[in-house]
Amino acid sequence: MRENIDVLVHEMGLRDGLQSIDTIFTTEGKMAWIKREAEAGVPQIQVGSFVPPKLLPQMADSAEIVRKSLAIEGLTVSALAPNLKGAQNAMTAGAHQIGIVMSVSEAHNFSNVRRSVQDSLDDFSLIVEYRNAHAEYKDVCISGGMATAFGCTISGPVPLGEVMRVAEGLLERGADRLSVADTVGYANPGQVKELFDELYRTVGHDVGIGAHFHDTRGLGLANAFAALEAGVCELDASLAGLGGCPYAPGASGNIVTEDLVFMLESMGLRTGIDLDGLLEAREIMEAQLKGEPVHGTFAKTGLPLGFQYAPAA
Amino acid sequence: MRENIDVLVHEMGLRDGLQSIDTIFTTEGKMAWIKREAEAGVPQIQVGSFVPPKLLPQMADSAEIVRKSLAIEGLTVSALAPNLKGAQNAMTAGAHQIGIVMSVSEAHNFSNVRRSVQDSLDDFSLIVEYRNAHAEYKDVCISGGMATAFGCTISGPVPLGEVMRVAEGLLERGADRLSVADTVGYANPGQVKELFDELYRTVGHDVGIGAHFHDTRGLGLANAFAALEAGVCELDASLAGLGGCPYAPGASGNIVTEDLVFMLESMGLRTGIDLDGLLEAREIMEAQLKGEPVHGTFAKTGLPLGFQYAPAA
Repeated sequence: MRENIDVLVHEMGLRDGLQSIDTIFTTEGKMAWIKREAEAGVPQIQVGSFVPPKLLPQMADSAEIVRKSLAIEGLTVSALAPNLKGAQNAMTAGAHQIGIVMSVSEAHNFSNVRRSVQDSLDDFSLIVEYRNAHAEYKDVCISGGMATAFGCTISGPVPLGEVMRVAEGLLERGADRLSVADTVGYANPGQVKELFDELYRTVGHDVGIGAHFHDTRGLGLANAFAALEAGVCELDASLAGLGGCPYAPGASGNIVTEDLVFMLESMGLRTGIDLDGLLEAREIMEAQLKGEPVHGTFAKTGLPLGFQYAPAA
Repeated sequence: MRENIDVLVHEMGLRDGLQSIDTIFTTEGKMAWIKREAEAGVPQIQVGSFVPPKLLPQMADSAEIVRKSLAIEGLTVSALAPNLKGAQNAMTAGAHQIGIVMSVSEAHNFSNVRRSVQDSLDDFSLIVEYRNAHAEYKDVCISGGMATAFGCTISGPVPLGEVMRVAEGLLERGADRLSVADTVGYANPGQVKELFDELYRTVGHDVGIGAHFHDTRGLGLANAFAALEAGVCELDASLAGLGGCPYAPGASGNIVTEDLVFMLESMGLRTGIDLDGLLEAREIMEAQLKGEPVHGTFAKTGLPLGFQYAPAA
């Protein structure tokens, strides 16, 4: 964790947001958004996904976006990769952090990638081994992502024990950190607290753990607060809640970056992020949409009278 | 608290919602809404406000609404009253609970009612004395409401000590319970936990304490969860988030009843409320609007696969 912040906000809009909408942003349009958001102080941005362009044409310029983003001083550039090939491409492009995601739910994992969770864990090993075999990639952070950790649209509730099993599996195979995702917007704050309490008991407090929430049913920020209460200090979010949920038409995407930052700073937790700058980044993003809905309340209401950013430690 | 529920959800839409919008519902329209929502299991509904009709024509039929609502078996009928005259009218009509609200912020209280907080506390005494002097009203619950407890649009931050002072003042004057309100949508969950922790330390755990949140900046349900964590088990909410905030155009009103109930039941906390019934009540309400916005995400997304209501204790 950087020294001058208490909670790391990881912007997802360029990946989780753009992959869920029809509009394809130009490379220049993406870079204008990334630059303004980084300038506002967002420390880490997931700028793309190394999937086949025919599956997600929105992500076709991910290598170029990663390379260009590396020029932004201080920004941690992350990318998603679905497999070894994608991870290799992400490393070649120079991504600082690569998220490799598998579903904790067998049914969901099989539906997504036609692999068992065990097979996906084995695939994960290949990626870590590849990274370890190449000295030039030794600083690349491999993040082990656990999708559907709070529930699954195919099999419903996901047992806590399964989440722990995958978490331990990822760490045994060399994951540098873990990311726990409520992929389909099923989590509630009681469950969030229980899961992260159990996860810290299982893997210890030295492992970096991030949380990824969707606001599908309006509980996103309550879940984020519950995660903070359990000790999580890395949170994914999407500017204007860009994105959506294929399982819930009309629902928003990830929790809203600017609402989250407002919550954190109000609570005295330093993010390093300037809210006015974030709203400017939002305008840059929004101007490129072709009718897709945006979300969030902070952009409508602004700061309360007497608001102060979290003071320096 | 009723025996078969863990958290009491108090519907505010008929009062805090309707008083904030232009559309004036007919008495029949209000009753259709109230009946369906009570049938869905909502245990308590604030059905009106005993203010002068020329100030709030939406509330002109409050006495009739109270009387008609009393016929609904099992429903606790609450009403708001700004002063002794209003409280007398609410008692005459038969309200089970009467909310008397003053602002913790001197500036806000003066702006609203041209009275100091001390004067408002003295007015509160008159209401309790009136209730106590009339045997037929001995069962009427007088709720002491503290507006702007989390911040004020005129004076900004409100010191915790002021909130405690007003809380103690209300209890000394005979309040049967307390209601703590984020009237203007300034609260954050860290602050909520701190305030309720301190309040329980100050007044003890035997006092009934409710929380009233607005979702102005998207933190409403996070604040509700924080209140639950501190031990609060009575929460105000508004169906579809009906209402708004005069200080924040475009913002939603109270936290959304159906989103809150979904959160509580998901967490294993019994509300006694059926979510399908709540959505039907929402439709009855929504059909009477003339373009006012509605809020909330649960109505768009429905239940997660495998959802179960909180089990009986």
